Amino acid sequence: MRRISGGVIAPKGFRAIGVASGIKLSGRKDISLIVSNVPCVASGVFTRNVFKAAPVLVSMEILKNNPTGIRGIVANSGNANCLTGEKGIEDARRMSKIVEEKMGFESNTVLVASTGIIGKRLPMEVVEYGIDKACERIKFESSSTSAAEGIMTTDTKVKETAVHYVSGLETFNVGAIGKGSGMINPSMATMLCFVTTDVKISHELLYEALKGAVDETFNRISVDGDMSTNDMVIVMASGMSEFSVVKRDEKFQIFQNHLKEVLNDISMMIVEDGEGSTKVIKVEVCNAPKKNLAEEVARRVGNSLLVKTMMFGENPNYGRILAAIGSFGEKIKPEKLIVKVNDVIIFEKGNYVGFTDNSVLKGRYVKISIDLGVGKESFTLFTNDLSYEYVKINAEYT
Amino acid sequence: MRRISGGVIAPKGFRAIGVASGIKLSGRKDISLIVSNVPCVASGVFTRNVFKAAPVLVSMEILKNNPTGIRGIVANSGNANCLTGEKGIEDARRMSKIVEEKMGFESNTVLVASTGIIGKRLPMEVVEYGIDKACERIKFESSSTSAAEGIMTTDTKVKETAVHYVSGLETFNVGAIGKGSGMINPSMATMLCFVTTDVKISHELLYEALKGAVDETFNRISVDGDMSTNDMVIVMASGMSEFSVVKRDEKFQIFQNHLKEVLNDISMMIVEDGEGSTKVIKVEVCNAPKKNLAEEVARRVGNSLLVKTMMFGENPNYGRILAAIGSFGEKIKPEKLIVKVNDVIIFEKGNYVGFTDNSVLKGRYVKISIDLGVGKESFTLFTNDLSYEYVKINAEYT
Repeated sequence: MRRISGGVIAPKGFRAIGVASGIKLSGRKDISLIVSNVPCVASGVFTRNVFKAAPVLVSMEILKNNPTGIRGIVANSGNANCLTGEKGIEDARRMSKIVEEKMGFESNTVLVASTGIIGKRLPMEVVEYGIDKACERIKFESSSTSAAEGIMTTDTKVKETAVHYVSGLETFNVGAIGKGSGMINPSMATMLCFVTTDVKISHELLYEALKGAVDETFNRISVDGDMSTNDMVIVMASGMSEFSVVKRDEKFQIFQNHLKEVLNDISMMIVEDGEGSTKVIKVEVCNAPKKNLAEEVARRVGNSLLVKTMMFGENPNYGRILAAIGSFGEKIKPEKLIVKVNDVIIFEKGNYVGFTDNSVLKGRYVKISIDLGVGKESFTLFTNDLSYEYVKINAEYT
Repeated sequence: MRRISGGVIAPKGFRAIGVASGIKLSGRKDISLIVSNVPCVASGVFTRNVFKAAPVLVSMEILKNNPTGIRGIVANSGNANCLTGEKGIEDARRMSKIVEEKMGFESNTVLVASTGIIGKRLPMEVVEYGIDKACERIKFESSSTSAAEGIMTTDTKVKETAVHYVSGLETFNVGAIGKGSGMINPSMATMLCFVTTDVKISHELLYEALKGAVDETFNRISVDGDMSTNDMVIVMASGMSEFSVVKRDEKFQIFQNHLKEVLNDISMMIVEDGEGSTKVIKVEVCNAPKKNLAEEVARRVGNSLLVKTMMFGENPNYGRILAAIGSFGEKIKPEKLIVKVNDVIIFEKGNYVGFTDNSVLKGRYVKISIDLGVGKESFTLFTNDLSYEYVKINAEYT
């Protein structure tokens, strides 16, 4: 596996562009378009929130009806088109339809995504203008980076990646763009990720590969499964490489590993870009009796406001970590428990080692390792500290 | 029922004092003592955290051994005496023992509580000096307010209350002091509450009355039961009034209602004193199919960082409330759901009413009412907004 440039246009058969339509009053890019030269096998993982945004519902429907003939994805930022009723559904369908018409694609071939403020109708005149512009522009220009820019909201950095596989004559590529700026956990900021690849694969196998890869990447940075109203991860496979995945064999594994790698890259970029955050916190729980206890402990420690603020203050008040772990009551066995912060033991088998100087917390990365000592299951979570800036960003969002 | 002054010394038979020993470098009061002229029936509700602080373990033991002969409570602030091992247990026992000796009480008659930083041994020389001082002072001075001051940590306001009952010749009093400054939910700040009363009651009935009253008061402001390592609510009954509770009858109800009232007063004072908070948020969920769903929905909305920061910013971005409710998936029926903010409808039976001007959020009190429309169960939670000041307080705590 080797990282390459090009993002979503690294795989064969794809073009991409981002343009500014005016949804964002700042004048920044707010419409993104990815298209394929050929019909793609496609699959998606969507939020389980009951208030699914209109583009989520429309994309789920299109994917269900036409999982092997997808030609593109159109997305906007600045407005989530969520809680917008039947009119919102019409608006999302219209976004898809405009691309199909302008690009000469058949019906039900263009997926749609949105991110931004909830509860406001899309300004469709502006959106239509932007989509028109994107469809014109993409004919003579293609840029994964500009498409990545077009889906940013409070993101401060462009998120794109791509990997290349080669073995003898067989090669393939996987690329992705994404948006989402940390504190997704537990805050329900929208996470979008669009993946392209040129492998040949059925939509059943593509879904299976995607589902497994999402579980080990995005689900480690977002709380309670998928909470936001607009979250989606879409993958489109053009089949334009020689690499063909036909069953659950070694080649499936190779493809899934590459897919996982790009999803991991994007999810780490999201954590790195945490809203107002100054640190990336990794919470590793191991030797739990059950997977879900490992996950719950990791989430409770990672989501504790006292732990997050203590990290922001570089304040080695580690009792807060123990208090969060101990809140699980009798499931925790203090005599078996070992807790480390950046590999320095703070609690070991009944004994709290206590305060150390705060130099261990000075860096950008903090790892909290929790060995429950009562089983074999583990879970790793990534999150951020909680800063003044986070409060500012989210108090003033609209 | 009528509110009276006097706090924990309003009921007959009690004296109280708070003194400064020097545990707190600020020189503020940090040792509190409440004593009774006669042995009291006593009961308590304690944290379920597995890392129970030493004073919690010691008080549980004393109460178990001697539930009808309690003479007092000694408490310190500035240090939680938690994660301090066997030495911590010895220190907590020593605190209790010093009071027993100085006051001429029998063994196993003085309960002990602590609040403050976790993981550091108590500075016992200082603590002993402070307890000595309190035992001297209480002989010629008694003040509920000074005792309330002695247990404050990040609290900005003294928390004390008392109520009086009279019907014919029968009267009784219930008083309380407490500490805890909001954002207990979901942050595990310690909550302490010491209640005194002069009713005559058995310890079984006293526990029953206390448990029911805590469920309807403190458990509405604290997350997942009791998470902090040091939480406790203690009630001491001197039996010095004419009012006698002997079975689960009307008089039990009258007593429990008065007990509930003082616990409610203290819990509301805690919410009002939320760390750095600018608002008190009440989340009412009704017509849920099950009590625990009502509670989970209230907690997820009340604990959402996006909802908390939106309230701080007085930003009517109500989609965040809907996204939090919707994260429960299929358990939520949008066509039945009605959501109001300060009685203004924002979502009604499938329709998002959308933005209003933010004047509705301008006050100190915000009520979020969520009618799930699919059952008869309800739950009410109180919480705070999330401000810059909260982050500051908790980043710099030690």
